[in-house]
Amino acid sequence: MRALRYENEKLALADVARPATNGEALVRVTLSGICNTDLEITRGYAGFQGTIGHEFVGVVESLPESGAVARPLGRAQSSEPLLTRGLVPGDRVVGEINAGCGTCDLCRAGDPRHCLQRTVLGIVGRDGAHAEFLKLPATNLLPVPDEISDERAVFAEPLAAACGILERAQITEHTRAAIIGDGKLGLLCAQVLATTGATVVLVGRHQSKLQIAARRGIETMNVDKSKTRGREFDVVVEASGSARGFGLALDLLRPKGVLVLKSTFHGVTEFNAARIVVDEISVIGSRCGRLAPALGLLRANAVDVEGLISEECALADGLRAFARASEPGVLKVLLRP
Amino acid sequence: MRALRYENEKLALADVARPATNGEALVRVTLSGICNTDLEITRGYAGFQGTIGHEFVGVVESLPESGAVARPLGRAQSSEPLLTRGLVPGDRVVGEINAGCGTCDLCRAGDPRHCLQRTVLGIVGRDGAHAEFLKLPATNLLPVPDEISDERAVFAEPLAAACGILERAQITEHTRAAIIGDGKLGLLCAQVLATTGATVVLVGRHQSKLQIAARRGIETMNVDKSKTRGREFDVVVEASGSARGFGLALDLLRPKGVLVLKSTFHGVTEFNAARIVVDEISVIGSRCGRLAPALGLLRANAVDVEGLISEECALADGLRAFARASEPGVLKVLLRP
Repeated sequence: MRALRYENEKLALADVARPATNGEALVRVTLSGICNTDLEITRGYAGFQGTIGHEFVGVVESLPESGAVARPLGRAQSSEPLLTRGLVPGDRVVGEINAGCGTCDLCRAGDPRHCLQRTVLGIVGRDGAHAEFLKLPATNLLPVPDEISDERAVFAEPLAAACGILERAQITEHTRAAIIGDGKLGLLCAQVLATTGATVVLVGRHQSKLQIAARRGIETMNVDKSKTRGREFDVVVEASGSARGFGLALDLLRPKGVLVLKSTFHGVTEFNAARIVVDEISVIGSRCGRLAPALGLLRANAVDVEGLISEECALADGLRAFARASEPGVLKVLLRP
Repeated sequence: MRALRYENEKLALADVARPATNGEALVRVTLSGICNTDLEITRGYAGFQGTIGHEFVGVVESLPESGAVARPLGRAQSSEPLLTRGLVPGDRVVGEINAGCGTCDLCRAGDPRHCLQRTVLGIVGRDGAHAEFLKLPATNLLPVPDEISDERAVFAEPLAAACGILERAQITEHTRAAIIGDGKLGLLCAQVLATTGATVVLVGRHQSKLQIAARRGIETMNVDKSKTRGREFDVVVEASGSARGFGLALDLLRPKGVLVLKSTFHGVTEFNAARIVVDEISVIGSRCGRLAPALGLLRANAVDVEGLISEECALADGLRAFARASEPGVLKVLLRP
C-alpha cells in the first residue's frame, strides 16, 4: 500500500505492506488531515520514524476474532446514545490515537493518554494515518454517526484536542477567555470554548482566518490591538506555537489567571518565571482530548470545520500537500488515499 | 533614622527621616531578615528604589487615631484564637507586606495580594524593613504570641510564603512531593509540606543544609541522585531559582503532575513547552502566603526556623551582612537596628 513516511530525516511516499493486525483492527483510510504536529515531526519533533498522520476517518476493514465493541472513552455532549453498538466491518470510524499497555492503572481506568508505555498513531512508535490502511486497537475506534460527512469527521481528533481544554481548565459562562493564534487549532479552540457560553476573543494576524470565527459570532481581535486589553482575561489559550504568543498570553491574563498551553513544538521557549510567580499564574499543558465529545459537537453542528479546509489532495500527491500545508495562510490540507 | 536603601543601582546605609505615618501604623523594627528577593532587588529585580526588606518583627510605636483592630487575613492552623484582640502601642507584631488600595473587589474581599494598585513593603513603592522604623496599614499587623521569640517571629513572612503553596496546590497525606533547592525557601517549603502528612523529599546540593530537614524527619536527596526518581512525584516545588531546577522539576514529575514555581528571580528562563503539553503538567506560580497560618506553625513548634539562622548583624553593618547573605552556603542573615 501507499504511505507517507518520515525516515532518516526525510519525508517520502513509499510502497509498504499493509499493517499486520496482530489482534488489532484494520481500517481503510478514507481521508486524513495534515496537522501542525506532522510538520513538526518532519523538523525532528518527538524523534518519530515511520508513517506519519493521526487525524483520519476510515472504514473498518477487519476486526480481531474476538470481535470488538466500541467503548467510548468519554461521554458525548449530546444526550442521545452515540456509541453503544458493536462495530462490524464496513462501519465508518474515527479513532483515539493513544494506545496504552492495557494493564497499568491508567489504562485500567480507561484513559491510556498518559500510559508510560503508550504508542501514539503516527507520533510515537506506531505507523499513522497518511496511508491506505492503518491499525489500531479495536477499542480505540468510534463509529461515526451518519449525519457527519467524512470531510467533517476527519476533524474529530483535532476537535477533541480543543475539547481537551475543558478537561484541564474550568470554563464557564462567566469566564473571559482569549485564544492566541488564528490557525487551525486556535479556530477550533475558540469555537469549543464558545460552546460553554464563555466570553471568547480570538486573537490573530490574518483577517481571512479571523473571519471564520467571526462568522460563528466569536469576537476577534488583531494581535496588534491586543495590548490594550492587558490583564483582562481569566483564561488565555496559547495556540500560536510561538514564544511571542506565550509572552502575549501572560500580558492578557489577570492575576491568578490560567494560561492553557496547547501547541506542541520543537525546541525551547524563553519565559519570565518571575511574572508567573508574582501574578500567581497557572500554566496548564493540554494535549489530547477525547473523541466522543468532539463527535457530539460535530453531530450538533456546533462548530464550523469545513471552513477550515484549504485543499484536498490525493495521497499520491502527499509531498506537494505537505509543502502546501506549510505555506503561511493555509489551514487544513486533507489527503485522500 | 538609619535605613538600608537601594537607590541609583547602589545599596547604601542612609540616615533618613522616620516614615510619615499618614494614617498608618508606625513600627519600631526589632529584627529584619535578608531574603533572596532583597538580593535580587540589588540586581535590578522589580525596579525598586528605596529602603529594602520585607521580613521583620517589631513593636508598635504608634497607631492611627481611629485605633486599629488586628484583622487576620487568614485562619491560623492552631485551633486557639490567635489574633482577636485590638492592637496597642508596645505590642510585638509582624506584618502582611501587601498594602492594597482598599476599594477594589480584591481588597474588599480581604485579600490585597493581587490588588493592581498595591504597594509591597520593600519591594514595590513602599519603604521596607531594613530600618529602625517602618510603616504599614494597621490592618496589616498581627500580634505575635508570647511563646514565639523575636528570632523565630522574624521568619513569619517567609514561612507564610511557604504556606502559600497550600493555597495554590492540593497537598494531602497521599501526595508525593519533592522540593528542589536546599536554601532558606526550600527548607521552609519542605517543612510546611511535611506538616500535611505528604511524603516529602528535599533535593539539594549541600549536606549541611539537607541535614536541617533530615533532623525534622524529612527525606533528603542529593541532586545528582535525583535522576533515578524521574516521574515519581505528584508535586514538585521549584525553590532553587535556577533554570536547571526548572528542568529537573519537569523530570521528577509524573504526567499530569503539578510544578509549583516559588522563586522570583530576575531574567528569563528557557523551557521545553512541548514537555508541559505532552505530559499535561500544571505550572503554578506561588508568591505570598498569609501570616496567620505561619504564626500558628511557629507557635506549635511545627517547623525549625532557628536552624536556618547563619548570622545576626547590626543594621549598621548592613552592607557586610548583605555580602555575607550572598555567599554560597549561607542561610538567613538577620539585621538588628
